[in-house]
Amino acid sequence: MSNRPESSAADGEGRRQFLTASSAMAAGLFGSSLVSTAQAGARTMPDTAPKCLFFDVNETLLDLTAMKKTVAAALGGREDLLPLWFTTMLQYSLVATVGDHYEDFGVIGAAALQMVAANNGIELSERDAQEAIAPIRSLPPHPDVRPALEKLKAAGYRMVTITNSSQKGVDTQIRNAGLEDLFEQRLSVEPLQIYKPHSRVYHWGARKLGLQNSECLLVAAHGWDVAGAMWAGWRTAFLSRPGAQLYPRANRPEIVEPDLLAAADKLIALKK
Amino acid sequence: MSNRPESSAADGEGRRQFLTASSAMAAGLFGSSLVSTAQAGARTMPDTAPKCLFFDVNETLLDLTAMKKTVAAALGGREDLLPLWFTTMLQYSLVATVGDHYEDFGVIGAAALQMVAANNGIELSERDAQEAIAPIRSLPPHPDVRPALEKLKAAGYRMVTITNSSQKGVDTQIRNAGLEDLFEQRLSVEPLQIYKPHSRVYHWGARKLGLQNSECLLVAAHGWDVAGAMWAGWRTAFLSRPGAQLYPRANRPEIVEPDLLAAADKLIALKK
Repeated sequence: MSNRPESSAADGEGRRQFLTASSAMAAGLFGSSLVSTAQAGARTMPDTAPKCLFFDVNETLLDLTAMKKTVAAALGGREDLLPLWFTTMLQYSLVATVGDHYEDFGVIGAAALQMVAANNGIELSERDAQEAIAPIRSLPPHPDVRPALEKLKAAGYRMVTITNSSQKGVDTQIRNAGLEDLFEQRLSVEPLQIYKPHSRVYHWGARKLGLQNSECLLVAAHGWDVAGAMWAGWRTAFLSRPGAQLYPRANRPEIVEPDLLAAADKLIALKK
Repeated sequence: MSNRPESSAADGEGRRQFLTASSAMAAGLFGSSLVSTAQAGARTMPDTAPKCLFFDVNETLLDLTAMKKTVAAALGGREDLLPLWFTTMLQYSLVATVGDHYEDFGVIGAAALQMVAANNGIELSERDAQEAIAPIRSLPPHPDVRPALEKLKAAGYRMVTITNSSQKGVDTQIRNAGLEDLFEQRLSVEPLQIYKPHSRVYHWGARKLGLQNSECLLVAAHGWDVAGAMWAGWRTAFLSRPGAQLYPRANRPEIVEPDLLAAADKLIALKK
């Protein structure tokens, strides 16, 4: 293995990190935290196929455009505020997690929308905020999703979803997207009352399927989701959909592709 | 107590919440999560003074303007992206918390800045991102802070800081802000390796001072910080500085004022 290009790249990256960390420590700026293996470069790609593919839902499988339109309208047409709203929703889903006050993702999303609106001088009632995000329940899949999932299923992959949406929410979403026939389970974080990327969500998902963490692979279009999954011992594939960014402090997923068709080709190659 | 105006207001609010929750459940949209006491309105103001005041540091005590200028410059002058960067930093501080991969707040802030830059077509190296946020170590206090802290100290309050900055970071910040004489301890989340608003941070803070949670009061300019503190059993005062918003799904703090001088008057009144 030592002469594979991935290994060499990882070694070079490790050395660079060490030098960067030494400089920062000498400057006394950041303490020991930069001496981390978090960025140690691309993992060596395993040769074996994972035993199950776990798919994130929102943005990864489903196209959020319809919801973005109604949310932007609620913000007085301010499309530029959409990333701030989405990030605020994710922040507060974790605020609720670490504060042990879980609520439905839609409730948190509406509250986040009210906060972003208020900070920009826009009045928005709780009801109007909830209505603005209601289209999340009837989003279409991205065009690459169904053909890619069909190929993966034909190749023999077990496939499930794993989402921050409520159980009722994901059941509705997958039915409305016409993808019900493709997944053997639809996992929601709701029974755990904590949100991804809490490591317990991934560990629980593996146990639900009767698998070891190392036998699971998450497909997601969110840097935080693949980071958390890798930290929990899972393998990952990242879809670099528009606006998606990997977290620079986590390892690089073994698969990084612009859409699910390209990722599916890599995954199917592992079956051979 | 039952005929105090605060109690009546809380009862009315509770009833409104019940009706709202019932309607939503009938519609079958959000399951049981709206049946929450989270929004049950303003708490009844205790008549007793808290035994210790815990102050958040960044934005609550210190003026972030100088750092915002260097961060905006790193983003090619895009001041409009500052709220997204700050929220992304907070989101990833919690991603690191729930993924059990704590790193220094400055390291996470720089990584978040690189992500926001990349999503907006701006190239930014790790080193340049770290330099852009370096002014966080030498921020001045808001003009209301020293006079208010002096009044609170004269009134007999024990005072400490409690921050997501590293221990070395907060030591440097408080020294550079000239506030060293006012706090008996400077608490950082660093020894816990988790970030606020994790409930364990507040519980640990209370124990460090030898107090019960109900004897502690957090002063902060962040909705997530006062929400987490209240969920952990603390009392709270919120400073509604520009850009600060309360989280609509948490109780209202017992004190909500635009700056620390106004909040100090309310806190000193409790001592009498």
